Amino acid sequence: MTAPLKHIPEENAAAKARAHMLAPECEVLTIPDSEPLKLDGEKLLAPFSIAYKTYGQLNADKSNAILICHALTADQYVASRHPVTGKPGWWERLVGPGRPIDTDRFFIICPNILGGCMGSTGPASIDPKTGHPYGLNFPVITIGDMVNAQVRLIDHLGIDQLFAVVGGSMGGMQVLGWCSRHMERVYSAIPIATAAWHSSQNIAFHEVGRQAVMADPNWCSGNYYEKGLVPRNGLGVARMAAHITYLSEDALHEKFGRNLQNRSERTFSFDADFQVESYLRHQGSTFVDRFDANSYLYITRAMDYFDLAAEHGDVLANAFRGTQTRFCVVSFTSDWLYPTRESRDIVQALNAVAANVSFVEIDSIKGHDAFLLEEPEFAATVEGFINSCAKRRGLAR
Amino acid sequence: MTAPLKHIPEENAAAKARAHMLAPECEVLTIPDSEPLKLDGEKLLAPFSIAYKTYGQLNADKSNAILICHALTADQYVASRHPVTGKPGWWERLVGPGRPIDTDRFFIICPNILGGCMGSTGPASIDPKTGHPYGLNFPVITIGDMVNAQVRLIDHLGIDQLFAVVGGSMGGMQVLGWCSRHMERVYSAIPIATAAWHSSQNIAFHEVGRQAVMADPNWCSGNYYEKGLVPRNGLGVARMAAHITYLSEDALHEKFGRNLQNRSERTFSFDADFQVESYLRHQGSTFVDRFDANSYLYITRAMDYFDLAAEHGDVLANAFRGTQTRFCVVSFTSDWLYPTRESRDIVQALNAVAANVSFVEIDSIKGHDAFLLEEPEFAATVEGFINSCAKRRGLAR
Repeated sequence: MTAPLKHIPEENAAAKARAHMLAPECEVLTIPDSEPLKLDGEKLLAPFSIAYKTYGQLNADKSNAILICHALTADQYVASRHPVTGKPGWWERLVGPGRPIDTDRFFIICPNILGGCMGSTGPASIDPKTGHPYGLNFPVITIGDMVNAQVRLIDHLGIDQLFAVVGGSMGGMQVLGWCSRHMERVYSAIPIATAAWHSSQNIAFHEVGRQAVMADPNWCSGNYYEKGLVPRNGLGVARMAAHITYLSEDALHEKFGRNLQNRSERTFSFDADFQVESYLRHQGSTFVDRFDANSYLYITRAMDYFDLAAEHGDVLANAFRGTQTRFCVVSFTSDWLYPTRESRDIVQALNAVAANVSFVEIDSIKGHDAFLLEEPEFAATVEGFINSCAKRRGLAR
Repeated sequence: MTAPLKHIPEENAAAKARAHMLAPECEVLTIPDSEPLKLDGEKLLAPFSIAYKTYGQLNADKSNAILICHALTADQYVASRHPVTGKPGWWERLVGPGRPIDTDRFFIICPNILGGCMGSTGPASIDPKTGHPYGLNFPVITIGDMVNAQVRLIDHLGIDQLFAVVGGSMGGMQVLGWCSRHMERVYSAIPIATAAWHSSQNIAFHEVGRQAVMADPNWCSGNYYEKGLVPRNGLGVARMAAHITYLSEDALHEKFGRNLQNRSERTFSFDADFQVESYLRHQGSTFVDRFDANSYLYITRAMDYFDLAAEHGDVLANAFRGTQTRFCVVSFTSDWLYPTRESRDIVQALNAVAANVSFVEIDSIKGHDAFLLEEPEFAATVEGFINSCAKRRGLAR
């Protein structure tokens, strides 16, 4: 009668994900013990690895590099097939040959974030000091730590200044982090559907997700790896709750309305009668096949901690004082996770320091996820901004 | 380091709640086997009980009765101390001597809904056919079934026509159900912060809650009662997620902002650093001490199934055709669970059948829960409507 989350084995996708975690199918920079990363929480992290993908060619003067920062549950496979799910890159609409972020012209770098689970060091990685997975012994990190780890990668690639740093959602937080902590290394920046601090409602939703994971007995206080367990149910529920916040009420209504799953009558049971139920269950079950539950805890925590104003004496403008970066801030009308007013806060802070900033609010019913979806006006905005910056920077077409 | 949901024993409140379920401290109407309730899902339910509280005195011609319909997690203790939690009645602001719904003038009836867990028959009740708790053998019920069960109570009390039927949220759905199925028995009606159908986003949030409960191994496919188990973690997570939807982003921001719990630094752990986290955890843990997890499944399902338009050939106005009831529809500006436009749908349908309807949108930042909180304009609206209807009905002051 009841139908809790179904878990589609998909050739044991979870095992595939775990294998990729430990031996990613991409380039990996490993920072040795001798060059630890000083974390915002004061701890030192070393050694650590950053797994990354690049697309296109770095030009002779290394002036055409674009760093793409991914969101909470994405990864380095921005413009190429995902090795675990087999799906296309998560931003192929925007990144690729002839696309707004043109891999024929630019050298694209997309690292998996620190704390992630696609090859960069995170809670699922082996702690060299113990020979066992970190689990909750992994230090709590911040968006700033993620950015500082990326700086090591950009140093390694010999790039002084990135032509652009681009990202949506938590990717946008990293963009803002770059533009504050390392502003001289960013020629232009596109923070999309993001905010300079995480709202109390967003913290609340994250806390629900974390409690769902921690309530799963398979979580084992974070030590599930070597027990062969996965807190699937908890992580699935966390993903379902989060997924609602990525859409808009109108998008959900347009997509599903109150449509029944089988065009038939209500079953008077707890089966997934409504299409929206079935859709959410699917979102939950496929997510756990590719994502590490502890990474989910650490990354949501980093987002909750993000507060660029608090880092700068409660004055957001101070975060950007002295900036020469050219900004294009983008929001979407129906995004209730990072509503337009939070983008306006960023724009106002940039205006207060006389930064070069353009701001575009895209009319969309698709909610927060609009930045990942077909939105021609958004694509045109990114393309126009990139092209005008490239012209100014003297990058040949 | 980690702090999952804490469960405050509170003199074993859960045992107290269970005891109240089986032997409620209030009046109980029991309908015998010979008078089964025909459910919308076609099954017959009998025997069944409706636990209820009354306040004030029924007048000689039985014309001063007001039925108050409670919301998802409330109960019959609308204006008196809750026997399990010891807290004041949930609507004492509005109901009591000299209050807008004046117990000195009116006879107030507040039943625990069918499917509930405070003495009315629900999944935690003993199935007389087996001698064991129903669990998931309890039939899936609808809002209409809840209303039809209340009709038995009103019949039992010898009341032909209720002077008013009042309720917020799911209580408002019952009000609408009364005004459609039994319109001749309702002189006036106040549906508050509600809708004539449950939106796809609301179904989605409910589904997350149900999955959280079902993911808890203590749930045991609904058969936890006789095992001495309670799916606390799952139900706690469900409540946390739901609770966010009861507030507004502005209310959360005003109440908590990004305030840290101990006015100190971030702990760089998964402790409840932010006040909003601690608040939500508390909401989760106290809820499980007084509420039955299976009731939560059944009642949310009933709400998801609610669609007055679909019951009437997809034309909402048909639900009210021929009504003589006087309506006061109330919504709150910051309610995103049942936004004002959903109240407008009700008002438009009532206008289409030339019903007597007034509509008030209350300006509030308190979100959906505003109807339970201090909102002077709301209280004045209810009081004014009740008084003018009482005058017209010839009820002496």
